[in-house]
Amino acid sequence: MTFTHDASVRGFASDNYSGVHPRILDAIARANGGHQISYGEDQYTEELGNVARNTFGPEAQIFPVFNGTGANVIALQSLLPRWGAVICASSAHINVDENGAPERIGGFKLLQVDTPDGKLTPALIDQEAWGWGDEHRAQPLAVSITQATELGTLYTPEEIKAITDHAHKLGMKVHLDGSRLSNAAASLGVPLRALTTDAGVDIVSLGGTKNGILLGEGILTLRSELAKDLKYLRKMNMQLGSKMRFISAQLIELYGTDLWRELASHSNAMAAKLSQAVEEIDGVQLVYPTQANGVFAQLPTEVSDQLREHFRFYDWDRAAGQVRWMCSFDTTEEDVAAFIAKLRELMGAYAAA
Amino acid sequence: MTFTHDASVRGFASDNYSGVHPRILDAIARANGGHQISYGEDQYTEELGNVARNTFGPEAQIFPVFNGTGANVIALQSLLPRWGAVICASSAHINVDENGAPERIGGFKLLQVDTPDGKLTPALIDQEAWGWGDEHRAQPLAVSITQATELGTLYTPEEIKAITDHAHKLGMKVHLDGSRLSNAAASLGVPLRALTTDAGVDIVSLGGTKNGILLGEGILTLRSELAKDLKYLRKMNMQLGSKMRFISAQLIELYGTDLWRELASHSNAMAAKLSQAVEEIDGVQLVYPTQANGVFAQLPTEVSDQLREHFRFYDWDRAAGQVRWMCSFDTTEEDVAAFIAKLRELMGAYAAA
Amino acid sequence: MTFTHDASVRGFASDNYSGVHPRILDAIARANGGHQISYGEDQYTEELGNVARNTFGPEAQIFPVFNGTGANVIALQSLLPRWGAVICASSAHINVDENGAPERIGGFKLLQVDTPDGKLTPALIDQEAWGWGDEHRAQPLAVSITQATELGTLYTPEEIKAITDHAHKLGMKVHLDGSRLSNAAASLGVPLRALTTDAGVDIVSLGGTKNGILLGEGILTLRSELAKDLKYLRKMNMQLGSKMRFISAQLIELYGTDLWRELASHSNAMAAKLSQAVEEIDGVQLVYPTQANGVFAQLPTEVSDQLREHFRFYDWDRAAGQVRWMCSFDTTEEDVAAFIAKLRELMGAYAAA
Amino acid sequence: MTFTHDASVRGFASDNYSGVHPRILDAIARANGGHQISYGEDQYTEELGNVARNTFGPEAQIFPVFNGTGANVIALQSLLPRWGAVICASSAHINVDENGAPERIGGFKLLQVDTPDGKLTPALIDQEAWGWGDEHRAQPLAVSITQATELGTLYTPEEIKAITDHAHKLGMKVHLDGSRLSNAAASLGVPLRALTTDAGVDIVSLGGTKNGILLGEGILTLRSELAKDLKYLRKMNMQLGSKMRFISAQLIELYGTDLWRELASHSNAMAAKLSQAVEEIDGVQLVYPTQANGVFAQLPTEVSDQLREHFRFYDWDRAAGQVRWMCSFDTTEEDVAAFIAKLRELMGAYAAA
Repeated sequence: MTFTHDASVRGFASDNYSGVHPRILDAIARANGGHQISYGEDQYTEELGNVARNTFGPEAQIFPVFNGTGANVIALQSLLPRWGAVICASSAHINVDENGAPERIGGFKLLQVDTPDGKLTPALIDQEAWGWGDEHRAQPLAVSITQATELGTLYTPEEIKAITDHAHKLGMKVHLDGSRLSNAAASLGVPLRALTTDAGVDIVSLGGTKNGILLGEGILTLRSELAKDLKYLRKMNMQLGSKMRFISAQLIELYGTDLWRELASHSNAMAAKLSQAVEEIDGVQLVYPTQANGVFAQLPTEVSDQLREHFRFYDWDRAAGQVRWMCSFDTTEEDVAAFIAKLRELMGAYAAA
Repeated sequence: MTFTHDASVRGFASDNYSGVHPRILDAIARANGGHQISYGEDQYTEELGNVARNTFGPEAQIFPVFNGTGANVIALQSLLPRWGAVICASSAHINVDENGAPERIGGFKLLQVDTPDGKLTPALIDQEAWGWGDEHRAQPLAVSITQATELGTLYTPEEIKAITDHAHKLGMKVHLDGSRLSNAAASLGVPLRALTTDAGVDIVSLGGTKNGILLGEGILTLRSELAKDLKYLRKMNMQLGSKMRFISAQLIELYGTDLWRELASHSNAMAAKLSQAVEEIDGVQLVYPTQANGVFAQLPTEVSDQLREHFRFYDWDRAAGQVRWMCSFDTTEEDVAAFIAKLRELMGAYAAA
Repeated sequence: MTFTHDASVRGFASDNYSGVHPRILDAIARANGGHQISYGEDQYTEELGNVARNTFGPEAQIFPVFNGTGANVIALQSLLPRWGAVICASSAHINVDENGAPERIGGFKLLQVDTPDGKLTPALIDQEAWGWGDEHRAQPLAVSITQATELGTLYTPEEIKAITDHAHKLGMKVHLDGSRLSNAAASLGVPLRALTTDAGVDIVSLGGTKNGILLGEGILTLRSELAKDLKYLRKMNMQLGSKMRFISAQLIELYGTDLWRELASHSNAMAAKLSQAVEEIDGVQLVYPTQANGVFAQLPTEVSDQLREHFRFYDWDRAAGQVRWMCSFDTTEEDVAAFIAKLRELMGAYAAA
Repeated sequence: MTFTHDASVRGFASDNYSGVHPRILDAIARANGGHQISYGEDQYTEELGNVARNTFGPEAQIFPVFNGTGANVIALQSLLPRWGAVICASSAHINVDENGAPERIGGFKLLQVDTPDGKLTPALIDQEAWGWGDEHRAQPLAVSITQATELGTLYTPEEIKAITDHAHKLGMKVHLDGSRLSNAAASLGVPLRALTTDAGVDIVSLGGTKNGILLGEGILTLRSELAKDLKYLRKMNMQLGSKMRFISAQLIELYGTDLWRELASHSNAMAAKLSQAVEEIDGVQLVYPTQANGVFAQLPTEVSDQLREHFRFYDWDRAAGQVRWMCSFDTTEEDVAAFIAKLRELMGAYAAA
């Protein structure tokens, strides 16, 4: 069986269209051989615990799971009683991209707030932070923020701290969806803990898949009292992997070295390059500032449709002519140059017509 | 980062203590490089569809998921209205090893039947197959069988056919938990479809992880009308992988070649060797016939505890002195010989004491 | 035991602060005596079926339940597959007053749309009516409207028809939360079926409790194919009453005669009287037009707090100085006059200060 | 509208085929008039709290709900984390008569134990009381017993105490399904608290409907720390009544006086009379001892089918020729005599044939 594909094709659709970094494949191979206890009592998962403590502080504990939706739903469920609700941006992945898994599987209500740029603030949170004690209202007991946001924007450490202080004062816990946390930390030039532990976050969905690994995310608890329920929640929510050593080995390679920063910095740099070039093309506007690895642009729909014949990417808001161009760890300068050249050519033809 | 483990240690605890077969690692590496559409629209998942049709017949469709619990819960959910119930053996994995995920996440009730050997029959099914139309009773609308069973026993194709005929006559659909379907087919010397499609099964949880792959199972629908809901159910149940090509590539290598049979036959052969040797040791009895890759034995608890200091394995029913010894694709003849030698030595010392 | 209360106190807090109309108590007493089959096979529930068909057309079927939340959740669940979502006004009772029961128990996502007056329109529905076939999005397969709305406003029959036509064209079904359907029909001077069956609605939560009965609502299916699942859904959702004759007897008395219209017309008339008087008081403004039995007004918070010492009622949006004054079947002209007199007095004192 | 029924018909099918005791109707009428705060802040519900404390001790708190399934599911949910399981008799109402609501809505697994007479014991509980800390197993954290059982048998106070001691020692809480608790206390000649508070029970589903009231059950917490979650759980589980005064007034009349004992004693006495007469009829055997208001008998199926043409009742196990005859508060001596006469006549004819 030698089924294979054309490995020279790359686009700007998503950071999970890309494959696996060679060092991750090596880490998987090294973890192979012999027997290891299944379901997380293996030596790799133990070592991943050390990596988590080194990176996020002595109270950190990490629970590998399969994917981001699983991490988000379980993490939030662990913060909430059965009658809890989560305040989030209406653009949050948990609200728009998980087919209602938070509600259906997690059993919690999402209290959504519209934001200008995907970022919550204490004032925006206050729109939904009320009604405690009234059993008719789903009780707002957690806030979920995303870093980097779905719109490619970033919270500063101070902005996160303002949110966690505010939430904690109101008796709410804070979850951070960090499927692109590496991109945020790399862009801001800060350690991962500056955006999480040190900023008062309670629990994190720690991404992996979008930054060059094969498969795997971690639920990362940053206060020791939050960890005790997680093994049960992970199992009952069908996110407990048997040969967990292979997920943990990937996360060790990513977060136990500087690989996470190296790959994220590269994605960010490619997005920055793309963004700068875009700004110089007449008729194409940035919709949000490019702060991580995603570029959101507005251009004529005819042009974006023509461009898509050469490079795959998604409409963001087709009615508004907005598109999303994502860079990933394997995006090359040549990819960006070719993309920009084609975009420039098409916009020129469009202007001339 | 060069964290690693002692790859020379192997035991008899579980077929998922083992690692990954080298051909599977190669298949993963070959699937790497370039961009592929995420969430299952990649070329590997398309090719896996061909493999499924070739192996299980023209109506077969396959939906890769992360693990067996996910496959079981989603497969059963797809067969049932919200008020449905599933008849299963009380020893079934869905009943005893999934922390209630079928009930909590799937939302269905399990109607459990005690069996002598892990196998249902039409007569055993009839113990719970009643009460249709009475809204006070969770409606029995599906039967779930396991092949090979959790007790290492097998259904013949005719036994499965008798169950599916009976169930269908009563308006119930049939799910087969096939986390060790390869072991069953290899042991019985039949093709996979003889135990599934040709035996009238409606939907299968097609195993992978327990037979030498890194991670991945397939939900396999065998009637075309059952497939239409699965993409939604898989997503909302948090079992949709983004870089699915890497799960599909493993399943292609396993089921698109004879690798599944080669590995399962080896596990089975090791279990047979172990079983035969065990039968010759005074004071150790087989609890169930050894038909696949698991050996269930009864021996003095002191001896099994001493043996466990040398080889890891699990108690099955500690009060009854029953243990489970599993063989896997990487179990060697030397492993079996060393295990038997130690068991013989310990039983001798026990008898002498 | 003769515990009792002061039956002379009445306020403007809610139409379910009131008690039971004497004719309803009589109907309960008449249904007493002897044995009747429990769980809905009694003669009263059968007769209620006749009432439903007479009132709503030959395809109508009615399933009595305990309360409005139960009716809403079950009705919507019956319209949706497990991955369904419901488009509703963000002010809808299902969204703000049911502690997430739709999400937690019903298992569906609410796709919320902000409205100026609590009323959806085809254009507003289109804000969330998209994404079919994309499994990442909770699939919009039902629309829920409320008549009269939570803001005391009304849909005309034509407005409802426009919504159901639009929804049906898009493959979505339409639920009407009719906890105050009587108030709407009485105010518009139309039969109940003009707002439901004839307007293309698929399923209705038919209110009772808010219009003078003790306890009971009906899930009313208006297309025969929708009824078959309801008995199972009602039972598994814990809304199947055993001595159902007593709920059905109340609904027979209410809907099998003109009592529903008589009581609702009275509530509406009292609200109209209150509303007209309010409009003449300087410093008090109506927030929404008074079309049913609720009056929404804006006035200085100090005054509303003083007024509340005399008559119980709720803030609607305290920050905005908005309050809600509800009239019920037992509100008297004297109640309204006393309330207005006190309000006028307090506003006068406020203006003078 | 004067729809009515034949109030002279009574059978032996169920204690909820009967209607409402006149004192209960009076209590409802007395609670009518004026406005009372809805959703449980009314004066009747407050007074019901006093009744609960007087009857069950100073820590008791009561939360009125609509029906027994609602009471059971919410009570058990309040005892369990999301990964909890409940040990119960396989004959328990929660296991066989609630269409899986405990699993589907409560989200917990039932660990079922076969019993000879519907009663658990510490030894029977131990069959499922194991596996704490193993996340693969739904964690057994509550025991549910029924008093009187579904088989008409009773626990002594000492038997309940032995169960609660055992359960508490193992870290499990104890729920008592008391839909017929009155029958048990009346039969045993003990106060209600002897079977609950004093026997170490943590939470009770306190019946009402089966003992002469119109509609209503209470969730009764017997330790103060268990009460805090219940208002949220009741609402989100759709069991919060708006005009709660009318449920509370019934429960005040029933439990705030000796009415509960009077009615239950009568039902029990009628069952005893029936049971004694049955024992003297050749060919009819009692299946369980008659200890409350249900008589379980074995007789030829032809005879029970003929008998049913005169008096409605249910098969219990048709294959085994077992039937259930329930007495209720309104069963008369004449009813019993007529029933026995007919049974004797039919058995005579059967023997002669």
